Amino acid sequence: MRMYDIIAKKRDGLALLKEEIEFFISGYTSGEIPDYQASALAMAIFLKGMTDEETVCLTNAMANSGDSLDLSQFGALSVDKHSTGGVGDKTTLIVAPIVAALGGRLAKMSGRGLGHTGGTVDKLESISGYKTTLDREEFLSQVENIGIAVIGQSGSLAPADKKLYALRDVTATVNSIPLITSSIMSKKIAAGSHNIVLDVKMGSGAFMKTLEDAEILAENMVKIGKGCKRNVCALITDMDTPLGTHIGNALEVKEAVRVLRGEQKGDLYEVCIALSSAMASLVLGVSVKEAEAKVIETIESGAAFSKMRQWIKAQGGDVSEIDDTEKLPKTDYFYEVKSAESGFVTKMDAEKIGVASVILGAGRENKEDKIDFGAGIVLSKKTGDKVNKGDTLCTLYSNNKESFKSAEEKFLSAISIGSNAPEKKPLVYKIIK
Amino acid sequence: MRMYDIIAKKRDGLALLKEEIEFFISGYTSGEIPDYQASALAMAIFLKGMTDEETVCLTNAMANSGDSLDLSQFGALSVDKHSTGGVGDKTTLIVAPIVAALGGRLAKMSGRGLGHTGGTVDKLESISGYKTTLDREEFLSQVENIGIAVIGQSGSLAPADKKLYALRDVTATVNSIPLITSSIMSKKIAAGSHNIVLDVKMGSGAFMKTLEDAEILAENMVKIGKGCKRNVCALITDMDTPLGTHIGNALEVKEAVRVLRGEQKGDLYEVCIALSSAMASLVLGVSVKEAEAKVIETIESGAAFSKMRQWIKAQGGDVSEIDDTEKLPKTDYFYEVKSAESGFVTKMDAEKIGVASVILGAGRENKEDKIDFGAGIVLSKKTGDKVNKGDTLCTLYSNNKESFKSAEEKFLSAISIGSNAPEKKPLVYKIIK
Repeated sequence: MRMYDIIAKKRDGLALLKEEIEFFISGYTSGEIPDYQASALAMAIFLKGMTDEETVCLTNAMANSGDSLDLSQFGALSVDKHSTGGVGDKTTLIVAPIVAALGGRLAKMSGRGLGHTGGTVDKLESISGYKTTLDREEFLSQVENIGIAVIGQSGSLAPADKKLYALRDVTATVNSIPLITSSIMSKKIAAGSHNIVLDVKMGSGAFMKTLEDAEILAENMVKIGKGCKRNVCALITDMDTPLGTHIGNALEVKEAVRVLRGEQKGDLYEVCIALSSAMASLVLGVSVKEAEAKVIETIESGAAFSKMRQWIKAQGGDVSEIDDTEKLPKTDYFYEVKSAESGFVTKMDAEKIGVASVILGAGRENKEDKIDFGAGIVLSKKTGDKVNKGDTLCTLYSNNKESFKSAEEKFLSAISIGSNAPEKKPLVYKIIK
Repeated sequence: MRMYDIIAKKRDGLALLKEEIEFFISGYTSGEIPDYQASALAMAIFLKGMTDEETVCLTNAMANSGDSLDLSQFGALSVDKHSTGGVGDKTTLIVAPIVAALGGRLAKMSGRGLGHTGGTVDKLESISGYKTTLDREEFLSQVENIGIAVIGQSGSLAPADKKLYALRDVTATVNSIPLITSSIMSKKIAAGSHNIVLDVKMGSGAFMKTLEDAEILAENMVKIGKGCKRNVCALITDMDTPLGTHIGNALEVKEAVRVLRGEQKGDLYEVCIALSSAMASLVLGVSVKEAEAKVIETIESGAAFSKMRQWIKAQGGDVSEIDDTEKLPKTDYFYEVKSAESGFVTKMDAEKIGVASVILGAGRENKEDKIDFGAGIVLSKKTGDKVNKGDTLCTLYSNNKESFKSAEEKFLSAISIGSNAPEKKPLVYKIIK
C-alpha cells in the first residue's frame, strides 16, 4: 500500500477502505508518512468529503492510535460528556456529581486550560489537597466505589488526532465535518465510556456560528458515535456569553457549589440540568423528561452536593473548603468595573472576557505559566440586563494590582451597551438522539 | 499576508491575487513556507483549478524565482523548443542548426539524461572536445555570431518549480493543467527566448494518453505563454515508439547527421521538419507552410549541416567526427537480437527500450554514473514493420558483453509481434497557435 495512491483515490472522490485509513493513521502516527502527504490528504478530504463508513473507520483508527481506557467493568453505566468548551464552563463540576448520584459511572480524564479557556483540572486544583493524578487501579476503584473520579489526562489518548489536528490547524483544513467529527469522537471513544453526551456550542463565541451548521455537526457526531457502537446524544447550546457569572478557578468551584446546593438558578443551572438529564436518560434508559425530574431531585435532596463531597474527599481534597467556599483561595485585591453609560447589555464577547481573566492571573498564556487560583472575574451584569451609569459591571480579582487596568480595558472592549434590550435566546436549542 | 489565508481562499474556489501567488512562491523557495502548507495548496489548486490570470502569475513568479537569461539583444529572433522528452529524441541536434541556418537565434541550456531518457548535453559530449560549459559572455556571443550555442544547465532556472514539482510528485498533485503548464512554461520563460515551440507528446509512452488531454494541455500552454508575452505555438506529436532508429549518445549524433545531410527520411525526419517549420514560422513571421519549404531547402542545400559544423567547431568539438561519423566513439562488442516469430511489430514500449539502453551503458541509473558514449541500440524494425522469424529486430552495442543478455530480455519484453499490421497513426496530430 502506498500513501500516494490513498491521496489520489480521495482526490478523485472515491471512498477509502478501512485498511487504507488504518495504513494512513498508523504511518502518520509513527512518522513514516510525512506531514506534506497528510496535509494533501486532509485537503482532499475537506473538498471531497467522507462517507459515514469512512468517518467511523477514521474515528476508530485514531482512537486506537494510542492509550485507551477500558471501562467495560461498568457495563452500560459509564457516561462521559464532551463540550466544545468555553469561558466560564464549569459544567463538569456540576453534572458529574448529579449523574453519579443517579447511578452513572464517570471516569473522567480532563485537560488543563490554555489561552482564554479554563480547564477542569485547574479548577479542581484550587481545592487544597485535591490529587489530579491517580494510578489506573485507584482511578477505576474510586469510580466503582463512589461513581466518579476526575484526573488530569495522562498517557496519550488518540495521539494521531493530536498530530493531525495540529497539521489541519495550519493548512486550512479544520472546518470539515468528517474531520471535526472524527477528531472529537476518537478521543471520546478512547476514553472508554459507553454513554456520551455532546454539548455542541453555537453562536458568536463558538466554532459553529449558525443553528444549521451546529445541527449538521451534532447529527454527524451522534451518527458516527453510534457507528462506533456507543450510546450518544447531543445538545446544541448557546455560546454567546460566558456561562454563569464566575470566571476563574476557585471562583468557578464556588459557583458550582452554589448550583449543586440549589442556591443559584439562571443560565448555568439550566444548561447543567439539560446536560445531566441527557446523561441520566442514556444511563437509566428513561426519557429525558423523566431523567430531568430525577436530576432536579438530586439537587433539592442534597444528594448531588453530598456526592460532590464524597468525590472531593476521595481524591484528597479538603472538604471544608467546599462546605465553606470562603476558605477557597482568595486574592489580596479586587476592583469593581463601573458602567460609563446607561442602557442594556446587548452583547458580551466570551473570548475577550476569558483573555481578561488570564491577564488577572486566572489562566495560562504559555503551558509553563503558574495559575493564581483566586484570580478571576465575577459578572454583575449579563446580556439582557439593564444597566445604569455607575453600576458595577463586574468585579476583578487578582494578587497583582497592576493587572487591573489592562484587564478592565479588555473587559470593557468585550461588553456592548445599547438602548434596547436584545432579543432573548434559548439556552438549549435542540437535543439530537 | 498569511499562507493559511491563501490556502483557505483557493480551497473555497476563489482566484488568488498576483501578490498572494508571489508571496507563496517566494516564501516556499526560501523555505519559510513549509512543504505541508504547499502540498495543501497544491491539492486545493488541483481540485479547484486556476484562472488563466492566476496561471500566468504563477508561471512568472516561478520564472523569477532564480536565475534567468536575458536574450533581449536578439529581439524577435530568439527561439526555443520544449519537448516533453522521450526515448531516442535527438530532435534538438537537428532542428537547432536548421532554424539557425534560417536566421533564428538558439541560446539553449540543456539537461543531462537520467533513467530511461537521454539528455542533449550527453549526446553532444560524445563528440571529442565539445565544451558543455561556456561563460555567459562566450555563450551569448556565439549565439550572436553563428546563431546557436548549446550548453549544460548552470545556475538555477526556476528553483521554485523544481521544489514544487518534487512535492507534487509525492502528493498526487502532478496531473493538473495549471500546475503542469506553469511548471513547463516557467522554465521556458526563465530561459529567455521570445519564440517558443512546444512539442507535446501523446500516446502510451507519454504523460498525455489521449488527443483530447494533449490538446487541452497544449492550448493552455500556448495561452499562458502568450499571457507571459511570448510568441508560442505547440505541436502534438505521437509518442508510441522511440523516435528514429538510434538510441544512445554517439549513435544519436550519427543519426542526426544523416538526417541533416538528407540521407535519412522517416519518422524522425518528419517530426524534425514539423518542429523546425513551426519554429521558423515564428521567427520569420511566415506561415508554417512557407516555413516548411525553407526548412527542407536548408537540408537539401547543405546549409543545415554546414551550420551544425560551424556550431560544433565553435564549441570546441572535433568536426571530423561528424564529417565521418565512423570516428565517433564505438563499442568493442555488438549483439543482434533476432525475432522468434513472424508477423508484424504491433507495439514498442519506448520506456522499456530506454531502460535496455541504460543496461548497455548508454545512460545513467544514478546521477554519478559514467556514460559509455558508444553504447546503445539500433532498431532494425519499428512499429508496423513486417518481421520474419530469425530477422534481426535490433543491434545492441556495449563495451560490457555481460549486459547483452539482460538488455535483450528487456528489449524483447518491450516489443509485441502480432499477426495483423497495426493501424498507421499520424506523427503530428495538430499544430496549435
